Amino acid sequence: MSLIVQKYGGTSVGSVERINAVAARVAAWRERGHQVVVVVSAMSGETNRLIELAKAIQPRPAPRELDVLLATGEQVTIALLAMALQQIGCPARSYTGAQMNILTDSAHNKARIRDIDGARVLADLAAGRVVVVAGFQGVDENGDITTLGRGGSDTSAVAIAAALKADECQIYTDVDGVYTTDPRIEPRARKLSRITFEEMLEMASLGSKVLQIRAVEFAGKYRVPLRVLSSFEEGEGTLITFEEEVVEEPKIAGIAFARDEAKLTVLGVPDQPGVASRILGPIAAANIEVDMIVQNIAADEATTDFTFTVHRNDHPRAIEILQEIARELGARQVLGDERIVKISLVGVGMRSHAGIASKMFAALAKEKINIRMISTSEIKISVVVDERYLELGVRALHEAFELDVPA
Amino acid sequence: MSLIVQKYGGTSVGSVERINAVAARVAAWRERGHQVVVVVSAMSGETNRLIELAKAIQPRPAPRELDVLLATGEQVTIALLAMALQQIGCPARSYTGAQMNILTDSAHNKARIRDIDGARVLADLAAGRVVVVAGFQGVDENGDITTLGRGGSDTSAVAIAAALKADECQIYTDVDGVYTTDPRIEPRARKLSRITFEEMLEMASLGSKVLQIRAVEFAGKYRVPLRVLSSFEEGEGTLITFEEEVVEEPKIAGIAFARDEAKLTVLGVPDQPGVASRILGPIAAANIEVDMIVQNIAADEATTDFTFTVHRNDHPRAIEILQEIARELGARQVLGDERIVKISLVGVGMRSHAGIASKMFAALAKEKINIRMISTSEIKISVVVDERYLELGVRALHEAFELDVPA
Repeated sequence: MSLIVQKYGGTSVGSVERINAVAARVAAWRERGHQVVVVVSAMSGETNRLIELAKAIQPRPAPRELDVLLATGEQVTIALLAMALQQIGCPARSYTGAQMNILTDSAHNKARIRDIDGARVLADLAAGRVVVVAGFQGVDENGDITTLGRGGSDTSAVAIAAALKADECQIYTDVDGVYTTDPRIEPRARKLSRITFEEMLEMASLGSKVLQIRAVEFAGKYRVPLRVLSSFEEGEGTLITFEEEVVEEPKIAGIAFARDEAKLTVLGVPDQPGVASRILGPIAAANIEVDMIVQNIAADEATTDFTFTVHRNDHPRAIEILQEIARELGARQVLGDERIVKISLVGVGMRSHAGIASKMFAALAKEKINIRMISTSEIKISVVVDERYLELGVRALHEAFELDVPA
Repeated sequence: MSLIVQKYGGTSVGSVERINAVAARVAAWRERGHQVVVVVSAMSGETNRLIELAKAIQPRPAPRELDVLLATGEQVTIALLAMALQQIGCPARSYTGAQMNILTDSAHNKARIRDIDGARVLADLAAGRVVVVAGFQGVDENGDITTLGRGGSDTSAVAIAAALKADECQIYTDVDGVYTTDPRIEPRARKLSRITFEEMLEMASLGSKVLQIRAVEFAGKYRVPLRVLSSFEEGEGTLITFEEEVVEEPKIAGIAFARDEAKLTVLGVPDQPGVASRILGPIAAANIEVDMIVQNIAADEATTDFTFTVHRNDHPRAIEILQEIARELGARQVLGDERIVKISLVGVGMRSHAGIASKMFAALAKEKINIRMISTSEIKISVVVDERYLELGVRALHEAFELDVPA
């Protein structure tokens, strides 16, 4: 007997029929002798409906009240799923985030989990009940309702699995696992049966939408075995393992990409200490997240060019801020480019294998794809290219690294 | 400066526009220097939508989970109303029943309030905030969400007013006060500017839908001044007073009626001690509430006829139970009648005025209305008549007691 935490997203619980299907699946796990905790999202469409309702009243809804409102989405689902389980003879009990004491900080709309009190849930499991918990939500130390932000249900599930010392955390979604790249871009993309945490972290942060990055971080930190599976089909899905467990390891796990970035460059910045923080400070102060950062020495050697990428939505605001800073710094010009994408090669094997970067650049060059920016980490190489080269670039890399061939 | 608790029902918060209108009204009270706590129901239609969703999954929804589900209705409203208040510059904060520690017993779907912790709310009021509380819901000592049953928001408002020692509890509804009888039945019905608690209690229990009976009971017990007003029109509404405050008192306050009753009779029951409890015990055990009870000696003097009324929905089940009991008791026959209504005359003046009952029976006899059952209390006389006589009976009594003439 093992203790399993399962998470079902909005699409998986999007209707009465689907809730019944989830109940049947959960009950089957319990009948096989497992203890099951189920974490659910709001029914698909519900969160958007609530946000629209809020915006009709307050264009920028008050964060505390928005959380009170949004938390109702999952609360509806937990009640309905608990009913569906009881209807098929499976004892079940639901808990909101507050009821389960999912303690978070007070950053409304994007709170972080601090602690979880699993005592009541463990008592229910011992009594043979399935426990159904509202994902995405928690409570701060004042008793105010908080939410973790979009996709936070994955994080809830992993955090609960960590708190309960679960044997596995299963994330049920509308895809059947993690692929070498997006099959809509490269039909020969292959499902991975395993991927390391570090690789998954890079894949998630680089735009693979299968798992929320904070959930992967949490799983890594507390060493929670995580599995991604389909809620509509049977299958083993993809297990996210700790590196040491992987026996035979492919060099490259997959190719991630992000379409929603934009590039900003400040040309002719004085090459002095503190310039980077003078530029990025006001950007950060405006709550704009920066992704890649590259600094090159300019031709004249007294100045430098400073380039970084942000989310495409933040591009207009970032340009405004940069123009102000550029004036103050005496920089030559500010350039912006919204028509770029980022493509990244991810794999723990990269660490010990030279030549992967050059093979990557060669594969792109062969297709005459101009690389606009490069950034590397221990287990990934990212390039920024014009957005029209996205599909071509992904397919070229997929083929060059033979990702369609099982390792 | 006074502390006012205002309650707005589902129709009053049924749309974004109406929520904005409520916000404007609340903000105006605050600007006049009052501290305001607002108790709200779910948006109209929402509770029914949730119940239908539940029933699509579980024909008889598990009571604990149904409460988790239904509590989301008011939670949506409190968040939206707090946003609407903030949007017009009025500081506001929302609380669910659990957050405000509205402690109830554990009788899911029909819980009773035991205690309320007003500390946090009083701090908010002192800080100049309007406090918005979810009606209809609470939390039991295990931390499980409970609901008070339909109309429970009135009870929430009164209980909160009592806990905060509010100066007045205002119930905003879709009518502008309490009338001598239903104006849809008798167009000459007159709005009362005052009514005593005892009269209101009888009016509410006898089918006047303006206020929930438990709310009136609560207000009486804790001596909370209660006022019924329209949320759509301006006006003073009806103040529900304590008897001793009423200077000049009409004999009759109004005429209430209930369409949703059914009558059951067990004929030829042995006239022995304990028979009444033998009959009503199993009815109570089936959670069927009994309203009027009448027992007559039958012709043969060794047996008696036992008659009582129940809610029409419970009639089929009650008949089944009675047939079983009748067999055990050796009773002659069980009769049921679903086509009856109850009409009641209510007024504290009745106590000291003989002749009201005879005047009532004479007025009905004049219209050839046959009285099937009679039951009296200190301040009301109820009769059961065939349902086709409802309108005629109400109008005859309204005229006989000159209720259209201001006292």
